[in-house]
Amino acid sequence: MSRLDVFIDRMVSQRACLDFAIAETAALPGPVFELGLGNGRTYHHLREKVAGRDIYVFERAIASHPDSTPDEAFAILGDVMATLPQTLARFGPTASLIHADLGGHNLAKNDAFARKVSPLIEPLLAKGGLMVSSDRMYFDALEDRPLPPGAVPGRCFIYRK
Amino acid sequence: MSRLDVFIDRMVSQRACLDFAIAETAALPGPVFELGLGNGRTYHHLREKVAGRDIYVFERAIASHPDSTPDEAFAILGDVMATLPQTLARFGPTASLIHADLGGHNLAKNDAFARKVSPLIEPLLAKGGLMVSSDRMYFDALEDRPLPPGAVPGRCFIYRK
Repeated sequence: MSRLDVFIDRMVSQRACLDFAIAETAALPGPVFELGLGNGRTYHHLREKVAGRDIYVFERAIASHPDSTPDEAFAILGDVMATLPQTLARFGPTASLIHADLGGHNLAKNDAFARKVSPLIEPLLAKGGLMVSSDRMYFDALEDRPLPPGAVPGRCFIYRK
Repeated sequence: MSRLDVFIDRMVSQRACLDFAIAETAALPGPVFELGLGNGRTYHHLREKVAGRDIYVFERAIASHPDSTPDEAFAILGDVMATLPQTLARFGPTASLIHADLGGHNLAKNDAFARKVSPLIEPLLAKGGLMVSSDRMYFDALEDRPLPPGAVPGRCFIYRK
């Protein structure tokens, strides 16, 4: 498998898991959190597909495509190690859907970050809320969900509160 | 369609067109030229799939993933407006396959660049050689090829000498 093959599997799986998770959580009123904006393609997809829920983006510094840039009120800027606990204080356990694509090249570094950030993500989810991640996360009490059709095992993960 | 949808179509089409073009030109001995290395995913794919042909990468400055970095002897560094004519002088019209993903966000800028660079690409191809591009190119005498199955019209282009 080439890196192009892996990347395509990852993007296709991300979309399949997000579309599934958006539908699965449609009845929950709480906000959607996008951890990491990057180029903004996934945020653009969320904005197209999520109806009636606020979408907040967590990012150090916005550098996205102009079409995919959140309004200031929906951008939570800074290091997620600081902003996630602040967000828990602000919103409580209300998030209907959280998506993260840590997405660095260095798999060991991604994994270390996933371990560090998982305990800060877990309490944000509402009951029935889903977390979609391109990397394996380390949660205490969330349930691993089977992937929807079209997603490639290992390229995306879904967790449920 | 979200930007994620468009991007997935583009990546899937690129792979389908490249796999088709690699097979179609397998009997030609001339080199393969990759215009723009970027992260190096497509170069990695070419290196996995192309057998018995040299692959040269054209780039201003190498910033690819360590797994996808060409040996110095196969990296042609500098502005393609200068390096493509130098390459014609060095290799003559021998390229079996040329791939370009100009890939900027700004479609008008991509198109202007495609117009500028097309006349420098066209003479490099051997007879029967193929050019695969993520953007529409502007050639005098190359033939537009139908896309292979799996490629989405408008997301990739194939031209034949």
